[in-house]
Amino acid sequence: MQRIEDAERLDRMFHALADQSRRGMLDRLAKGPASVSELAEPLELALPSVVKHLAVLEQGGIVISRKEGRVRTYALAPKAFDAIETWVAKRKRGLDRQFDRLEQFLAKGAGSTGESK
Amino acid sequence: MQRIEDAERLDRMFHALADQSRRGMLDRLAKGPASVSELAEPLELALPSVVKHLAVLEQGGIVISRKEGRVRTYALAPKAFDAIETWVAKRKRGLDRQFDRLEQFLAKGAGSTGESK
Repeated sequence: MQRIEDAERLDRMFHALADQSRRGMLDRLAKGPASVSELAEPLELALPSVVKHLAVLEQGGIVISRKEGRVRTYALAPKAFDAIETWVAKRKRGLDRQFDRLEQFLAKGAGSTGESK
Repeated sequence: MQRIEDAERLDRMFHALADQSRRGMLDRLAKGPASVSELAEPLELALPSVVKHLAVLEQGGIVISRKEGRVRTYALAPKAFDAIETWVAKRKRGLDRQFDRLEQFLAKGAGSTGESK
């Protein structure tokens, strides 16, 4: 059960990142919290489009928001990228092990490779 | 120009990762190279579906393939996750700086916070 939820969370997270405009908003938010209009301006996007992108980022767990009066302010979620880092690190270990094995193989048997047809 | 290409590459990469079946294939490939049918079996997917997923992963620069005779073998690309790691690390630095500033702010002025209405 937990695993299915985790998988769906990763789906939403990676989907949220697969868009240049959304990544542009994250670049802005990496400098500090911002309102919807502050996020819209440099990207030259219409507000409804920005709101939509922000919803996708929020569903992906990458940003959080807070409404004060009529202004909603967005910020990077404190652990925004931890799940991705963990996921990537695990796969990289697999990749490293493959290269270690390849190196051992080459170190041991480099001279004795037979060419089979 | 370079930047647009990079952005499109990241789009394709994150899109490729936003799917549980595709991530399942990467988990298998993290153990070593595999053929299409070896990848299909544990996932209980039809071969055409697997072929389609693998094409998305290859377009995303995450896997590479080689055809020998009638068998196409897939492997994780040697630098499969480097672009993602670089991208995430950069944004995390921004996030860390925000927390540093917040800590400094709290350390300096914790007693003097005024409640404004």
